[in-house]
Amino acid sequence: MASTTDVIVVGAGLAGLTAARRLMDAGLTVQVVEARDRVGGRTLNHDLGDGRIVDSGGQFVGPTQDRVLALAKELEVETFPTYDQGLSTYVKNGSARRFTGDVPPDVAALADVGAVMLRANRTARSIPVDEPWKALGAKALDSQSLTTWIRRGAVTDGGLDLLNILLGSAFGGSATDASALFGLWYVAGAGNEYTAGTLDRMIGVLGGAQDSRFHGGAQMLSLRLAEDLGDAVALGHPVRRIEQDDHGVRVVGDNAQWRAKRVVVAVPPTLACRISWDPLLPAQQDALFSRMALGTLCKIEAVYSEPFWRKEGLSGQGVFRDPTSPVCSMFDNSPPDGGPGILMGFVGGAQWRRWVSLPAGQRRGAVLRAFATVVGKRALAPVDWIEQDWTKEEWTRGGPTSVLAPGVLTELGMWRDVPFRRVHWAGAEHSPYWNGYLDGAVRSGEMTAAEVVAAEGKM
Amino acid sequence: MASTTDVIVVGAGLAGLTAARRLMDAGLTVQVVEARDRVGGRTLNHDLGDGRIVDSGGQFVGPTQDRVLALAKELEVETFPTYDQGLSTYVKNGSARRFTGDVPPDVAALADVGAVMLRANRTARSIPVDEPWKALGAKALDSQSLTTWIRRGAVTDGGLDLLNILLGSAFGGSATDASALFGLWYVAGAGNEYTAGTLDRMIGVLGGAQDSRFHGGAQMLSLRLAEDLGDAVALGHPVRRIEQDDHGVRVVGDNAQWRAKRVVVAVPPTLACRISWDPLLPAQQDALFSRMALGTLCKIEAVYSEPFWRKEGLSGQGVFRDPTSPVCSMFDNSPPDGGPGILMGFVGGAQWRRWVSLPAGQRRGAVLRAFATVVGKRALAPVDWIEQDWTKEEWTRGGPTSVLAPGVLTELGMWRDVPFRRVHWAGAEHSPYWNGYLDGAVRSGEMTAAEVVAAEGKM
Repeated sequence: MASTTDVIVVGAGLAGLTAARRLMDAGLTVQVVEARDRVGGRTLNHDLGDGRIVDSGGQFVGPTQDRVLALAKELEVETFPTYDQGLSTYVKNGSARRFTGDVPPDVAALADVGAVMLRANRTARSIPVDEPWKALGAKALDSQSLTTWIRRGAVTDGGLDLLNILLGSAFGGSATDASALFGLWYVAGAGNEYTAGTLDRMIGVLGGAQDSRFHGGAQMLSLRLAEDLGDAVALGHPVRRIEQDDHGVRVVGDNAQWRAKRVVVAVPPTLACRISWDPLLPAQQDALFSRMALGTLCKIEAVYSEPFWRKEGLSGQGVFRDPTSPVCSMFDNSPPDGGPGILMGFVGGAQWRRWVSLPAGQRRGAVLRAFATVVGKRALAPVDWIEQDWTKEEWTRGGPTSVLAPGVLTELGMWRDVPFRRVHWAGAEHSPYWNGYLDGAVRSGEMTAAEVVAAEGKM
Repeated sequence: MASTTDVIVVGAGLAGLTAARRLMDAGLTVQVVEARDRVGGRTLNHDLGDGRIVDSGGQFVGPTQDRVLALAKELEVETFPTYDQGLSTYVKNGSARRFTGDVPPDVAALADVGAVMLRANRTARSIPVDEPWKALGAKALDSQSLTTWIRRGAVTDGGLDLLNILLGSAFGGSATDASALFGLWYVAGAGNEYTAGTLDRMIGVLGGAQDSRFHGGAQMLSLRLAEDLGDAVALGHPVRRIEQDDHGVRVVGDNAQWRAKRVVVAVPPTLACRISWDPLLPAQQDALFSRMALGTLCKIEAVYSEPFWRKEGLSGQGVFRDPTSPVCSMFDNSPPDGGPGILMGFVGGAQWRRWVSLPAGQRRGAVLRAFATVVGKRALAPVDWIEQDWTKEEWTRGGPTSVLAPGVLTELGMWRDVPFRRVHWAGAEHSPYWNGYLDGAVRSGEMTAAEVVAAEGKM
């Protein structure tokens, strides 16, 4: 196959675009092919009018997320702190209680959560982020669900519920969906080469993974990357088929095709399986990728003329252990200058599964009542309402990331990043650190670009 | 969309062809569309020459599998007993020991296996096969792996190993891959409306799921069904896209398309996700189907001029708890008249994952040495050798069936069979009884045909 560019990148999300930029930095020619009519993948700016936007996809950034922070600096996208002043609210079965910090004041459950955090952080330190299947006791950890592992610490229903609320947004699921090894590896990855990962950092706002946001929205990173790439990005072309032989690759869309020496596939692994491959994807990789379904997550935003809760000393943050609430947690997601006021709620995991089937009006009513429990009755009358259900996006089909069930990491995990001849893999699910996060996407894009450059250099 | 037939069936496996037959029985017109150049899906006759064949796919049938037995009778395909005379062999770390029956004589592990069987059978009786998520304690059972559940019965490493050997062929995986609820529901389904399912029947030869085989091979069922359907079966047409509106459906292949009032999709759920859907597959169904990856299973057959082991009083059956053996279990798979002699071994789960990556010669050597441990050195020199790795089949990508991880059955299982407007689902994974077996395929095909007939009657 005659090449027209050096490398094709499939997927113009943050990983793919970062890979494309780094490949061009190294002097290679690149063609990016994207299914959607936009770039940014799981990051998405929703236009509020007035030149204002709100994030309705991945949005947070925090300490140790060096790669995305460096890229943001390079692209001149600034960050600002997530609104974290004043009191947060813990809603338990309809009654609200104020608190500060990241862990809700559930007296019965608090000791449990503390104990799990200590145990998780300690165990995570023994897990090599690059090869978790080689951890001491990996097989035993991978043969049980994270729920089982948490329960073994004599954790009560309350403690488990609280942890699941925190995982509702992090996994788009619960501790039941993950193997213990996956969960602890995920904690180990909530850091970087210099700083050990901790569960506290993973779930935390101030100093944690939810510490800050991006001016102009997280999608701005991809928009700027795409601007620099210019004509090299082709939108609206779902890739249906990828062929390769000894000489190159051919990437086939509905009514266009591209040839190159190599291809970087930067789509969620579960969607990579849906491409028609010639030759077939290696069985081990198909087995792994087809076990990497994304979590189930919907993000809801209610817009108000102003963040009225701030004047009342409220952070707008809420945690719900409440069967009537569709959201597991909520944040003040207002623009950096404070206007308009926006409350954002995550509907994840079991709550998604319950509420997504109900009529939109019923879901909206329940979300607004939940918000009102935290910030008062003014929450009931938003001026705008945005529901972003990531499971309904054909080119993502879930969020925020892939959670691996028992057995997968130890049996198949080692195949995750292995190049398939001229096909290289990138994406948030392909990173050792901050897997599933913006930082993981950037990190993976950079690592994969380096891998391709090295491979081309050798040829 | 104007219809040219009443119903399109996608997939000419046993479920799809059975559905097509029943639909035609009811007076509807049917078009079957199949990706492969053959019918039969996960059943496959390998031609030995001389008009003889050997099964290299699903092949066994047994008591309580009423639907496939009734279909076989209707199609005049006869059964014969799996060779089960003489002594079987248990190979543990290189040393062989003879035994009779289904459970190997591992003294240390035997009590464990017996206890697990009793406990599994008892618990399975409390699980409604149609709605396992409604079982008493369903959530707790679904929050743990089957390994965890087995371990709770104070089962030793040996007991767990033995059970995993038995699951190697049944799941193409291990107890770690399944939630406890899924595993016990699977046991509950190893029966029918009149007879409670048991683990004994699931793993058993005489009187169990491996009791008998089909004259002419299990694929003969599909071949006969297809013969009767004649021109209604179009081979070699992978379905790429399915569209529907209020008036009908359109099924699109690479260079052909079909229209109908309704469509029955009878492919493994994990492959149904890979079709491009318009409108999109409901998020709940995409979430479920994308969590239904098939197990990893390869079937190996060594052919000899005669079944020489029979004369020595050996059944040819073997169970391996041995790290040097790629096969977890083996059977005498000779044709009904006893010539030639064929030994068949399953390479499933962890063994598949290890051995599939090694060179073919190395795998062949190790399998033959394993066979020789059971039937003697003559096993080392077969006249023919057949490796059927189901994970390498583009239109199956694994075997024998889908095993559900923790959380899936209780959170998403209820979406499994729900029609998506004009789209109905069939396949071995869609049956309440004998899910994943030939009988489940037939049962599901018949149930879905009835569902379509009822829906069309109402219109």
